[in-house]
Amino acid sequence: MTVSMYSVSIPVFIQHLNGLNTVLDKAASWAVARKVNEADLLNMRLSPDMFNLARQVRAATDHAANVAGRLSGKELLKFANDETTIAQLKDRIAKTIDYLKSIEQSEVDGTETKDISITFPSGQTRQFTGQSLLLGNSLPNFYFHTTTAYDIIRQCGVEIGKRDFMGAPPS
Amino acid sequence: MTVSMYSVSIPVFIQHLNGLNTVLDKAASWAVARKVNEADLLNMRLSPDMFNLARQVRAATDHAANVAGRLSGKELLKFANDETTIAQLKDRIAKTIDYLKSIEQSEVDGTETKDISITFPSGQTRQFTGQSLLLGNSLPNFYFHTTTAYDIIRQCGVEIGKRDFMGAPPS
Repeated sequence: MTVSMYSVSIPVFIQHLNGLNTVLDKAASWAVARKVNEADLLNMRLSPDMFNLARQVRAATDHAANVAGRLSGKELLKFANDETTIAQLKDRIAKTIDYLKSIEQSEVDGTETKDISITFPSGQTRQFTGQSLLLGNSLPNFYFHTTTAYDIIRQCGVEIGKRDFMGAPPS
Repeated sequence: MTVSMYSVSIPVFIQHLNGLNTVLDKAASWAVARKVNEADLLNMRLSPDMFNLARQVRAATDHAANVAGRLSGKELLKFANDETTIAQLKDRIAKTIDYLKSIEQSEVDGTETKDISITFPSGQTRQFTGQSLLLGNSLPNFYFHTTTAYDIIRQCGVEIGKRDFMGAPPS
């Protein structure tokens, strides 16, 4: 087996979304024990001009699902982006993992040179190839937001460690 | 061109080490303007039980250089780990980028199934394949530490943005 567009993306996303799910489980237990309001926890951020925890989790799932959809040609996964509880964010992660698992390796492999045009919320349109989107945009952003979600929760004092971040590869 | 062990690692490491270098440049200018002691800045951390900024930068360079050396068979890059200034950390990043650039694509491609045994400082030894080391350990750790270095600096109030984190691909 050689590395491929599929092997460097879908199983990696699933592994670290599993990790994020564990991190959120520990945050939920911690919030109950400390009588912390979940909405307040989900609004924590490292800096006033950075996304809060809820948006870090949303961004992580979006980068994973959107590139999977754009490479495979599958209809993109849509969410209302109105989660206010950890259970709702865990549900979003579960739906994202289900979506990623529904994509076949053959639908993603060989998409290195696929032309992909993305219009961002700002109205700006950018042209990508499958490879430039995955390696130069989606993977770094996915890791950025999973790590920052972890960092916010860790800074709050929840007992999590690197092993939680690393997650478990899909079976 | 299909994705390969080289294309998903060496150029990615160089791109984000360039990003980390820019982030450190902005942190250095900010420290001068605010009369902040660089040693104090490098000792900032998100939580008392996480690495400080200097160690986040060291870990990022180590994960990149070590997997590049282990895949290619090139002698590993060694540092004294005694940096106390931003200039010294930038020098470490520059030496890591030079090392990564000295590795040929042909030395890394095709190493998916290469047996790699690593003995950690704890004394524990783990067996990897080239692919399991790169995708399951080195890349997530590299992104974890570059992101957390960025997060620490951003939380300090340095004006940096995602564009700085994203860096520039190698020319």
